[in-house]
Amino acid sequence: MKKNILEISSFSNEKLKYISGLKEKKNREKSGTFFIEGFREIQRAQISGKVKFEYILTCPDCYLGENEEDLVSSIDAKTILVPKQIFEKISYRDRPDGLIATAELPDFSLSSKTKLSDDPILVIEGVEKPGNLGTILRTAEGAGFHKVFVADPRLDLFNPNVIRSSTGTLFTLDVFQSDIKELYPILKNAGYKTFAVTPEAKSLHWDADLKGKVALVFGSEQYGLSEYARSQSDQYISLPMKGVADSLNLAMSAGILMYEVLRQKSQIDN
Amino acid sequence: MKKNILEISSFSNEKLKYISGLKEKKNREKSGTFFIEGFREIQRAQISGKVKFEYILTCPDCYLGENEEDLVSSIDAKTILVPKQIFEKISYRDRPDGLIATAELPDFSLSSKTKLSDDPILVIEGVEKPGNLGTILRTAEGAGFHKVFVADPRLDLFNPNVIRSSTGTLFTLDVFQSDIKELYPILKNAGYKTFAVTPEAKSLHWDADLKGKVALVFGSEQYGLSEYARSQSDQYISLPMKGVADSLNLAMSAGILMYEVLRQKSQIDN
Repeated sequence: MKKNILEISSFSNEKLKYISGLKEKKNREKSGTFFIEGFREIQRAQISGKVKFEYILTCPDCYLGENEEDLVSSIDAKTILVPKQIFEKISYRDRPDGLIATAELPDFSLSSKTKLSDDPILVIEGVEKPGNLGTILRTAEGAGFHKVFVADPRLDLFNPNVIRSSTGTLFTLDVFQSDIKELYPILKNAGYKTFAVTPEAKSLHWDADLKGKVALVFGSEQYGLSEYARSQSDQYISLPMKGVADSLNLAMSAGILMYEVLRQKSQIDN
Repeated sequence: MKKNILEISSFSNEKLKYISGLKEKKNREKSGTFFIEGFREIQRAQISGKVKFEYILTCPDCYLGENEEDLVSSIDAKTILVPKQIFEKISYRDRPDGLIATAELPDFSLSSKTKLSDDPILVIEGVEKPGNLGTILRTAEGAGFHKVFVADPRLDLFNPNVIRSSTGTLFTLDVFQSDIKELYPILKNAGYKTFAVTPEAKSLHWDADLKGKVALVFGSEQYGLSEYARSQSDQYISLPMKGVADSLNLAMSAGILMYEVLRQKSQIDN
């Protein structure tokens, strides 16, 4: 694809101010667009087919690999070339890799079209920390959890920290944002068994039968699970804690549980 | 313990400047002391018996619980009382809880006195990110890994982010800092089998026999394991990766592996 490339060398340029501003939620809400930084993240956003790009900001002096130009030319977006010192100002990272894109906010809401297969499902309720959600998504991708439901989040899914710590799996996975009260009936109707993960539970996770149509449900870092999720779940499970602490970091708990589901599943598959 | 309490209400006070300065490595190196923030972290540092306190900075208006005064009075340190706006300036956190201490840097070096029991061991080589190391320590405590060897780290163990994300388990666990070349002979002499965890390995972690005297060895976020660790390890293992990514976050990998060791161990114990 041949493109016209716009060169901008002043940070006070309105387009650059607009792009940089998308790191903040209020600006994303106003414009209906968002900010994606990094080769891997932009590539995964593109592969997903869910993202309609707007601008791609490039700084060849910052490139860390060799495939950046190919990625840029494969994306249907207005290309802007900026010098290193300007790119670093707009970047969200310590070590920028020379690529930032903007795109329209995709629609991740739950709809009647949302189809559930028989695969295990992850539900994260009320999550507060973008880094935790991103790490959970990255781990879900590794563990073969294709669908992640983010219920009643206390953060914006398109926070740059979510995208970054997810390494772009926010786009490649099927991520849905919903109300918890809307989600449980859908899971139940589809024959899923819901496992609420909470430190007070007496059953250890590895003693539970996590094969088949399993939905793991995790609450927020500070407040845990909602009363609704507690009352509507089929079973409570917890991770064994051998020390004085009563719980692990949320992302860690979710990762350990997802890999236990994968382990149990692999025993049937073999 | 009755104490004299010093009240300071100016941020330009030399003692406060000194305490605040300990968030930076160069100042810790100069003074041989470090900065511990938070009720839980200070409490665990005290319980460990490894930390000799110097100052404890308190701001009762910031307390989040009811046991802060008991903790303060149980610690042998000079107490300084400061108003909220000053405490918030010195604090490292978004939501400070009114307690900051300083203490002498403890000696975590490996020595001929380091005794190994039969428990599983974690080795983290060349770690770069304080948040990762802290999360690993917190998870190690949960998984019953009492000894963690931090080999050739690319960070300072007493970085406030390590302490914070470890929730103080940096003190309650047996954490040792060493050269990787000094550590392997000790592990081998004690009869440990070393498992190098690396994405290229063909054996999946859950197929390996992780019972008994097992040492899990992880490399750095960016560079992986050193040539030395690769060549000296008894076995290579990896986590199954079901998506397009080839690895998980370091802390996540370590947590999942430690809980698999704990699971396999629990099958013998029962």
